[in-house]
Amino acid sequence: MQNYKLTLAYDGGRYHGWQRQASGGGVTIQAKVEEALGRITGSAVEIAGSGRTDAGVHAQGQVASFALAQSIPCQELLQQLRRQLPADIGALALTYAPPRFHARLSAVGKVYQYRIWNSATPCVFARQYVYVYPGALSLPAMEQGAARLLGRHDFRGFSAYRGSKSTVRRLEALSICRTGQELRLTFRGEGFLYNMVRILTGTLLEIGRGERKLDTIDEILRTGARGQAGYTVPAKGLCLMEVIYP
Amino acid sequence: MQNYKLTLAYDGGRYHGWQRQASGGGVTIQAKVEEALGRITGSAVEIAGSGRTDAGVHAQGQVASFALAQSIPCQELLQQLRRQLPADIGALALTYAPPRFHARLSAVGKVYQYRIWNSATPCVFARQYVYVYPGALSLPAMEQGAARLLGRHDFRGFSAYRGSKSTVRRLEALSICRTGQELRLTFRGEGFLYNMVRILTGTLLEIGRGERKLDTIDEILRTGARGQAGYTVPAKGLCLMEVIYP
Repeated sequence: MQNYKLTLAYDGGRYHGWQRQASGGGVTIQAKVEEALGRITGSAVEIAGSGRTDAGVHAQGQVASFALAQSIPCQELLQQLRRQLPADIGALALTYAPPRFHARLSAVGKVYQYRIWNSATPCVFARQYVYVYPGALSLPAMEQGAARLLGRHDFRGFSAYRGSKSTVRRLEALSICRTGQELRLTFRGEGFLYNMVRILTGTLLEIGRGERKLDTIDEILRTGARGQAGYTVPAKGLCLMEVIYP
Repeated sequence: MQNYKLTLAYDGGRYHGWQRQASGGGVTIQAKVEEALGRITGSAVEIAGSGRTDAGVHAQGQVASFALAQSIPCQELLQQLRRQLPADIGALALTYAPPRFHARLSAVGKVYQYRIWNSATPCVFARQYVYVYPGALSLPAMEQGAARLLGRHDFRGFSAYRGSKSTVRRLEALSICRTGQELRLTFRGEGFLYNMVRILTGTLLEIGRGERKLDTIDEILRTGARGQAGYTVPAKGLCLMEVIYP
């Protein structure tokens, strides 16, 4: 068996997220890539993503791993993949990977970016990739909120996760950057809970609008009460930028 | 009558160009803007664009002028327009204009940009706005070709125009800029003939590929023979960036 590491970019707009679904469940990115690999190799190939992205979420650097019974040279397989994949899924890079490499289990961190179009002037060309919020926002307040989120916390209250596994995560960096009419929030951490980036962004937006006190952040980290946190901003502003491996 | 100057951005992908067409001729940007103004004012409004853009061509700074029998404050009219226009047509700015201002007749220049994705790596997020050409290109050769095009020439051979009007134009600037995997050709001139930017780009690409000699440019400028010039690159890479007024 030859193991591979595949880096993908995709426009999530027309997909029901990353994960393959039972038939009738809608088109997913995983299914599209597996179908392409199936046509190339002539047999069923299962791929493992670094994690699921939700319906409508984009990626500039999603990573998937898979093994083939018969090795195909990387450059050849990459070219064939590029010919097989639709225009909204791009195979950026393909390399051989050690036998034990697994896109999800080997990952030690991820970088997500959330784009907010903070202007009344219409955003025509990136309209599928931004969340439009034209109102006034206090950047200093949002940055103060971000500072309180950094570090190792129980982020249960900032997620839609309802299971019993640990919801403690380490948020390593959170930068808020304005370029022109756009605000970009970049999150780096060892792992993120279901909807965590979108709920953190919604909460910081409420702080930026002056509708929420900074202290509520500490409170939600302490109580884990989802009802106290901000709203979930739309999927289309979110992009998985990078998956980090040792 | 109150005269207005409207600046528009649009994604031309789903439109049959700028110009309103007889019924059944396809949806156009002019028709969409006129319909929006009609709904706002309650009467038919005719707008004049700075020029037509072809089917599939985009704009970041198209300008249109129109007059209303009853004046509406600019800020109010702009907000209403933004509510009425579809997401792929953006009203960027609206100002009062002197009675004699006419978007086409008053224009003294235009800036167009042509985007080429010069890489085998797929371009996912700007795929609707670039022409993909992954092969090797000699930038110095293309720049030498561009230098020969500058100035006042008869550009008939570099256009699809077949009428009898003058085809002499002044090309004031032509810059070729590489940023990452993308090549951008920016054209500034007093006016452009039908398909001129796309045929000039196709010709420069042939030079960059080493398939065409520089001297052919001087020859086509002298003979006006369209058959000698390069191919017409696709509409989707082209964008009207700016219309210049005195």
